Amino acid sequence: MTAPLEFYFDFTSPYGYFGAEQIETLVARNGRTVNWHPVLLGVIFKATGQIPLLSVPLKGEYSGRDLQRISRLTGIPFKLPTPFPVSTAAAARAFLFAGEADAAMAKQLGLALYRAFFVNGRNIGDTEVVLDVCAEQGLDRAEAAIAIESQAIKDQLRAGIVQAQGLGVFGSPYVIVDGEPFWGWDRFPMIETWLQRGGF
Amino acid sequence: MTAPLEFYFDFTSPYGYFGAEQIETLVARNGRTVNWHPVLLGVIFKATGQIPLLSVPLKGEYSGRDLQRISRLTGIPFKLPTPFPVSTAAAARAFLFAGEADAAMAKQLGLALYRAFFVNGRNIGDTEVVLDVCAEQGLDRAEAAIAIESQAIKDQLRAGIVQAQGLGVFGSPYVIVDGEPFWGWDRFPMIETWLQRGGF
Repeated sequence: MTAPLEFYFDFTSPYGYFGAEQIETLVARNGRTVNWHPVLLGVIFKATGQIPLLSVPLKGEYSGRDLQRISRLTGIPFKLPTPFPVSTAAAARAFLFAGEADAAMAKQLGLALYRAFFVNGRNIGDTEVVLDVCAEQGLDRAEAAIAIESQAIKDQLRAGIVQAQGLGVFGSPYVIVDGEPFWGWDRFPMIETWLQRGGF
Repeated sequence: MTAPLEFYFDFTSPYGYFGAEQIETLVARNGRTVNWHPVLLGVIFKATGQIPLLSVPLKGEYSGRDLQRISRLTGIPFKLPTPFPVSTAAAARAFLFAGEADAAMAKQLGLALYRAFFVNGRNIGDTEVVLDVCAEQGLDRAEAAIAIESQAIKDQLRAGIVQAQGLGVFGSPYVIVDGEPFWGWDRFPMIETWLQRGGF
């Protein structure tokens, strides 16, 4: 029971951001590790017929309030950026590029991208902004620029999304623990109980 | 800050059922009380363009699994009934009828209706089953039968739903605590923190 957890997220998902800020400490204090997998909710929602959360009447307004409240409760800074949501293909591909060399660097870049968007309001839907963040994290900007336009990385992202859909991933964050799926930041306490008890 | 909490639910909502099983003890141990308000998600979803949770591809299958898991975690018995979902107009009207005499009796009937459906698989979409449950809880079956077909109770339910929509209610369970809205059974721990701290 020491296989890594699998953490699926979209860079434009606010609850995915809160999840990304907490997943590593959650798994570490339970003696586990976690793999990060960027997905594109735009692709996934097309398959399931869902629409972006904040576009749903009433539910969208509620979620805006819920996100501010989670920020106050957890102490994780959060400000809904404009524009929102954005296309996160470039961010996801940059993550995969960083992960080719080093999974830890990819996670560091992933958090930096999330914070650029949800703390500093930088538009990570813009490829130039994504490349700026790559450079700030010590990656080679020119190499990153070539990589995220490469067919190999595009194919890798596409294949990753298809695989995620095959595993039932329909939202962000989505965590698989020893085959058991958990959707949503609000399932993190349940994930922890699951890890502590070895299931229930 | 001692006003009652407001608890909105639909009798065909499984997460509403788990909420109904826990809301009274949650508020009582924090020195508060709660008013129960039945709504019809069918009416509300029409306004917000949502579809029933278990009809969403992938999400529906996940939720079936999530509900079983919550049952194991909480010890609250649960079995997804067939047919599901059902129309809950008769159940909601019976609840309002019971509440005319006594709010505590209405809650007792509400739990009995939820358990009839989600524990014993009885079809509470059938008015006769609703009346049976009324009688089992000590209500007059004939009076209940007349009441739930009365224009007064129909109007009361309709007005209650319009009022709920005006307050932003878009799902079940939905709890309003001193003006602060919380959607979903998974927000109950956050409601408790909110009550303990007087907000955050």
